[in-house]
Amino acid sequence: MAQKTCILAYSGGLDTSVVIKWLQEHYDVAVIATVFDVGQDKTEDMTFIEKKALDIGAYGAQVIDLREEFANNYISKAIKANGLYENKYPLVSALSRPLMVKHLVDQAHARGADFIAHGCTGKGNDQVRFDVACAALDPSLQVLAPVREWNLLTRADEIAYASEHGIPIPVTQERPYSVDDNLFGRTIECGILEDPWVTPPEDIFGLTNDPAGPDAPDTPQEVTLTFEAGLPIALDGEQMDLLTLINALTDIGGLHGCGRIDMIENRLVGLKSHEIYEVPAAVALLTAHKALEDICLDRDTAHFKLDLEHKWAELVYNGLWYSPLKAALDSFIDATQKTMDGEVRLQYFKGNITVCGRRSPYALYDFKLATYDEGDSFNRDAAKGFIEIHGLPLRTWSSLHSSGL
Amino acid sequence: MAQKTCILAYSGGLDTSVVIKWLQEHYDVAVIATVFDVGQDKTEDMTFIEKKALDIGAYGAQVIDLREEFANNYISKAIKANGLYENKYPLVSALSRPLMVKHLVDQAHARGADFIAHGCTGKGNDQVRFDVACAALDPSLQVLAPVREWNLLTRADEIAYASEHGIPIPVTQERPYSVDDNLFGRTIECGILEDPWVTPPEDIFGLTNDPAGPDAPDTPQEVTLTFEAGLPIALDGEQMDLLTLINALTDIGGLHGCGRIDMIENRLVGLKSHEIYEVPAAVALLTAHKALEDICLDRDTAHFKLDLEHKWAELVYNGLWYSPLKAALDSFIDATQKTMDGEVRLQYFKGNITVCGRRSPYALYDFKLATYDEGDSFNRDAAKGFIEIHGLPLRTWSSLHSSGL
Amino acid sequence: MAQKTCILAYSGGLDTSVVIKWLQEHYDVAVIATVFDVGQDKTEDMTFIEKKALDIGAYGAQVIDLREEFANNYISKAIKANGLYENKYPLVSALSRPLMVKHLVDQAHARGADFIAHGCTGKGNDQVRFDVACAALDPSLQVLAPVREWNLLTRADEIAYASEHGIPIPVTQERPYSVDDNLFGRTIECGILEDPWVTPPEDIFGLTNDPAGPDAPDTPQEVTLTFEAGLPIALDGEQMDLLTLINALTDIGGLHGCGRIDMIENRLVGLKSHEIYEVPAAVALLTAHKALEDICLDRDTAHFKLDLEHKWAELVYNGLWYSPLKAALDSFIDATQKTMDGEVRLQYFKGNITVCGRRSPYALYDFKLATYDEGDSFNRDAAKGFIEIHGLPLRTWSSLHSSGL
Amino acid sequence: MAQKTCILAYSGGLDTSVVIKWLQEHYDVAVIATVFDVGQDKTEDMTFIEKKALDIGAYGAQVIDLREEFANNYISKAIKANGLYENKYPLVSALSRPLMVKHLVDQAHARGADFIAHGCTGKGNDQVRFDVACAALDPSLQVLAPVREWNLLTRADEIAYASEHGIPIPVTQERPYSVDDNLFGRTIECGILEDPWVTPPEDIFGLTNDPAGPDAPDTPQEVTLTFEAGLPIALDGEQMDLLTLINALTDIGGLHGCGRIDMIENRLVGLKSHEIYEVPAAVALLTAHKALEDICLDRDTAHFKLDLEHKWAELVYNGLWYSPLKAALDSFIDATQKTMDGEVRLQYFKGNITVCGRRSPYALYDFKLATYDEGDSFNRDAAKGFIEIHGLPLRTWSSLHSSGL
Repeated sequence: MAQKTCILAYSGGLDTSVVIKWLQEHYDVAVIATVFDVGQDKTEDMTFIEKKALDIGAYGAQVIDLREEFANNYISKAIKANGLYENKYPLVSALSRPLMVKHLVDQAHARGADFIAHGCTGKGNDQVRFDVACAALDPSLQVLAPVREWNLLTRADEIAYASEHGIPIPVTQERPYSVDDNLFGRTIECGILEDPWVTPPEDIFGLTNDPAGPDAPDTPQEVTLTFEAGLPIALDGEQMDLLTLINALTDIGGLHGCGRIDMIENRLVGLKSHEIYEVPAAVALLTAHKALEDICLDRDTAHFKLDLEHKWAELVYNGLWYSPLKAALDSFIDATQKTMDGEVRLQYFKGNITVCGRRSPYALYDFKLATYDEGDSFNRDAAKGFIEIHGLPLRTWSSLHSSGL
Repeated sequence: MAQKTCILAYSGGLDTSVVIKWLQEHYDVAVIATVFDVGQDKTEDMTFIEKKALDIGAYGAQVIDLREEFANNYISKAIKANGLYENKYPLVSALSRPLMVKHLVDQAHARGADFIAHGCTGKGNDQVRFDVACAALDPSLQVLAPVREWNLLTRADEIAYASEHGIPIPVTQERPYSVDDNLFGRTIECGILEDPWVTPPEDIFGLTNDPAGPDAPDTPQEVTLTFEAGLPIALDGEQMDLLTLINALTDIGGLHGCGRIDMIENRLVGLKSHEIYEVPAAVALLTAHKALEDICLDRDTAHFKLDLEHKWAELVYNGLWYSPLKAALDSFIDATQKTMDGEVRLQYFKGNITVCGRRSPYALYDFKLATYDEGDSFNRDAAKGFIEIHGLPLRTWSSLHSSGL
Repeated sequence: MAQKTCILAYSGGLDTSVVIKWLQEHYDVAVIATVFDVGQDKTEDMTFIEKKALDIGAYGAQVIDLREEFANNYISKAIKANGLYENKYPLVSALSRPLMVKHLVDQAHARGADFIAHGCTGKGNDQVRFDVACAALDPSLQVLAPVREWNLLTRADEIAYASEHGIPIPVTQERPYSVDDNLFGRTIECGILEDPWVTPPEDIFGLTNDPAGPDAPDTPQEVTLTFEAGLPIALDGEQMDLLTLINALTDIGGLHGCGRIDMIENRLVGLKSHEIYEVPAAVALLTAHKALEDICLDRDTAHFKLDLEHKWAELVYNGLWYSPLKAALDSFIDATQKTMDGEVRLQYFKGNITVCGRRSPYALYDFKLATYDEGDSFNRDAAKGFIEIHGLPLRTWSSLHSSGL
Repeated sequence: MAQKTCILAYSGGLDTSVVIKWLQEHYDVAVIATVFDVGQDKTEDMTFIEKKALDIGAYGAQVIDLREEFANNYISKAIKANGLYENKYPLVSALSRPLMVKHLVDQAHARGADFIAHGCTGKGNDQVRFDVACAALDPSLQVLAPVREWNLLTRADEIAYASEHGIPIPVTQERPYSVDDNLFGRTIECGILEDPWVTPPEDIFGLTNDPAGPDAPDTPQEVTLTFEAGLPIALDGEQMDLLTLINALTDIGGLHGCGRIDMIENRLVGLKSHEIYEVPAAVALLTAHKALEDICLDRDTAHFKLDLEHKWAELVYNGLWYSPLKAALDSFIDATQKTMDGEVRLQYFKGNITVCGRRSPYALYDFKLATYDEGDSFNRDAAKGFIEIHGLPLRTWSSLHSSGL
């Protein structure tokens, strides 16, 4: 068959359904609609989505379950890096994109495809992540981005095109928000959220109860997380794999209304956007991981890692997961996590996740140094000399600059 | 009179009361006990403290009200700097120390004193802050630190000394914690807190209700903060000075159980300590200030300021308030705050302080760029070129390094 | 007149000469060819260039002398910032572009023009600097970049176009290099330099003697630079303005074969290029300025400024001269330079510029602390306590991690 | 034998000779004088030094050759890290100290010693490096630092003590400088150098010819260095181990008067000192290594590594070689050096070491992207979109802040 093949990241929604048709029409390619299961909304039936793609005219369709790989090879790195873009956003979508691209490229190689395609818009971060990750993994593959290129600029245009081409149009009232989700959390944007002065309405939330509503329990709940080499391995003493543990923490956090983040963030493409995230597992894991680091990392490492983490999160946010700098930062981070073993107790209550205890065989917190009680081993005499040297540059400076600062 | 004079930072507690006597005994100095009102516990009667010092044998005693200066010249800088040591601690005590030293030095100059003295222990940060700030402001003044030097190593030793020298010993049961407070917040350490695996008991808290207890209201409360040039100037539309506003926010936050921080921090003197902070005003102000910056600072400035803020907080924590680097960082920060005007809406509820709206005449958040709706002014065509150039280094790299990372 | 006006940055070379015609042809605009004198090659006659533009058909032509403004408002900031992109390139062209754009915009305002135009190619940094500086100074002005847009892709195409349109073609043999120069230095690229394994041929250099050739003196020459508030104000004791001083240092350095830089640099547009710079004045000034800072800046400021300078240089290199972050960095830098007064002695010899002495009334270098001789005021006893505290985190760490690192 | 044992780092000079006696007198220990050969001055006869120690009364004496280990495990890391404290000092002594301490500790373990000892003064960096490295490697060992503790404050005191105790006093005229050297370079300080305004006299130099004197050749010499994984493996095509290569580069650089550094540096103990270094091999290796990185590291990695290198050098300078942060930084660095293969051509001439060519199979410098000639593969169209997005934040900012910066 002379027709070329294109592996499309297919979601089942209107956008990527129209993309199937548009790719056939404009590029004359055989589209392999590929649905990646990264733990998104459980209500969607994956086999139904597969069938839908074929009905629209995809040459092939498949569902690939990436949940374990996502947890073990992508989210795990974010936990060790305390990955928060702009000190806030746990990179939910930014973590899943490079994984999807890896499988798009693998599929392209397996099926001899010349193209991969995605349904990202032309003003978001995800288009960058798809395109750049593909450039990293196989610079010879071409990436098609119909939604960025086509002239179906409004939803009405898209529906008209769908209707002309026999693409099923969702009969239910479209939600007035745009949502992206995976097992690490859920992103909501657009609609009324485009006015950042307005309180986000309660109906945008899908994973978390209203902390002030009747469903959030009136009694705090405590959980204990056990870490080994920087990664959680047990919940309340029960060993579980990371995927299971994340799902459990999503449920607990969601019940207590925890893990909502409301932020204005700086997109890579130069604009600010208002995003709401529901990330109960991410908040719990990062809070606990940082609490463990607080007792296990020495000060110099802790302070340097804090700045390095910003760079890590920025790279991942900007689509540079497969870059040499990201790899080098991971090497730094892994070196700090070797003995990051211990336990952290978290308390959940009406929107709060609070650390209420931490311990580790490698805790640098040392009772004998810290105590003001019997058993104090700290040498107070050393302090005087330390302060004299610590203040010496400033003392020298001041003796020359009498006018003060 | 041949006797030399020493200006002592006096708190009224057992430690600094013993210090008065000890200074007379060991240095034969006339002690001027100076109580600084930085907004600490309102239950203490300042004139009573003054009288107590004279009774013990201080040559002079005085109370100096520093509350406005503290708010306007010290806390204000921390707000603009989003000052959080280790990304968490709002520097409560670290902010008041340099102010106190400034007045100790001023008093020493006014009264021709040769010494200043403080009652800090030999293993904390405050001794450094006192000594180094004095070195900065007047390197010729000598700082006496009896508690670091004397051999009254346990509480029993101190009580014995006090009893011998007719110093009144508190009859009330001593709290098993060590507390330091000022108008920006309250620090609790020691006692059972020296075991960081134990949940902090509720009785250590003095400013904030238990978020899960009956006193925290069941209904959220919303407040609006107005900022001008990076500083809050009004609460719910009512203009007020910073001191009044901080006190109001302490009350609101305390009511709702907000602003508790439980952390293991790295002290300058090389050990880790477990600290509990109650800082409802600090959390509200920094949360709101950052939310305003999110819409008003451009990305480059926002990202760079994030790292610079760590350095600012580290310097202040380490007692280097009066250092040239701190001054230069303030110049940077001030340059970013000129048009930091706007309003932020905060919601208080059972331990949570949540941003639910922000707006500014200088908001870089631009609806026309951000919207996916009618009126979109973003040029999607530019994105393609941008991504190509953004990914070019990685594409070049990948074409040479086939084995991946 | 209905015809719109365009202010063109005109150099007199073939490119911008063709641009005049092309703008008329494609945009039907009245071109005001504007030659900026930023101290480039003195052999070119400015009035001749002016006349040439009119001959080709420019509506107007003018020469604007920017040399003093360049030295005083642009180069001066680079000196205080020790501005070196990638720790090497003194930003010669990157400093002149924002100044030129300021005057293009001023001229556009003065003459009611709708466009400004430049002759930069589509793969360099200068196009970015022109476009972005204009966006900063007047976002409503449109920037035309014919050389980026047109299809005259080779030199032959350009010559054919020129010949068709009566544009004078340089009769002299074209140099096989591309050169850009101004009073702060000279850039050479292209031709044989595109192979970074080849030794740059001697004939590319225009400002500097061959250090190993017969023209570089066999005897070292010493000069003394006097600084005030971080800027040089006198050479060998003779007060002179910055422009005069830079020209003098260019001559001295050029004589001795100093200030050649051969580097591979990372362009903003994602590629690496091989650049040769001749920057004798820049090297001398930055070397001397840093030597002065070495004795006058305290360690904390010096170390922090080192990293901040990279960001400064990166912003300027990337065309962000008029950005808020650049302004904030300048505020930081200015705060550090207030008392940067003193003298530095430099020795020139066959390619080397060596500091051989420095002194300042604000020198933190303190003989009494530094000496191992009589008069030593350093307190050796303090060192022991200092070291104990300095090493305490590592000691604590090691006692838990027996296996070493 | 009840007497305890002390392993002393012995140099053979007056200081450590007196230390042998003083330790016996004050600590009643059996001193094992241990001479470490790290490539210091070849004129000293190691066996003679050994004998001298025994004559003075050392219980044992030994010479340990550390040259290969120094080159392969310590200097090698500095090359990959481009290790320069304050962007200038190649850490010569700072690299050898942790190696010496490792062997002091090993010897202490092998011989059941309770103490290690060194002859460092109380105001330098080396005392910190000895003490802290020992705390890292074996916190239970005690470090004795007689020169810091004793009261032999002047050279006359020391000579009197030596004479009393039968310690041979050097008959030759003492050099008026203090020198420390090893195979990576030579440090000179004190004497006339304590006045940083004075040109360092020629007689302080021991490794390098005067660049302006008759011994520096009048003809440039070119050498080619071959690198593999970030380390030099061949000189002019001849494979050699790192130790041999460093010695060869010391000779070549010394001949041409290269590698002199004159700097004011900030010591860890809070003072500034004037240091002269002769480091011809270090300058050549770092210059070449950086030139190779210039073509092989992508921009993001290169820029981030630049700041990280400062931290690396600062840690090493401050005695924290065996710290977890240093280890994590090394992991980062190693990750960047895997494919750092290639060749660099250096030219030596009268004090200058100049890169005149570099190439690598992993060069990201790409002729097809860089050329302005035939074969250009850069997409100029992408530039326009790139610039629009790159400038968008500033454009948005400017439209709100009309008054400029």
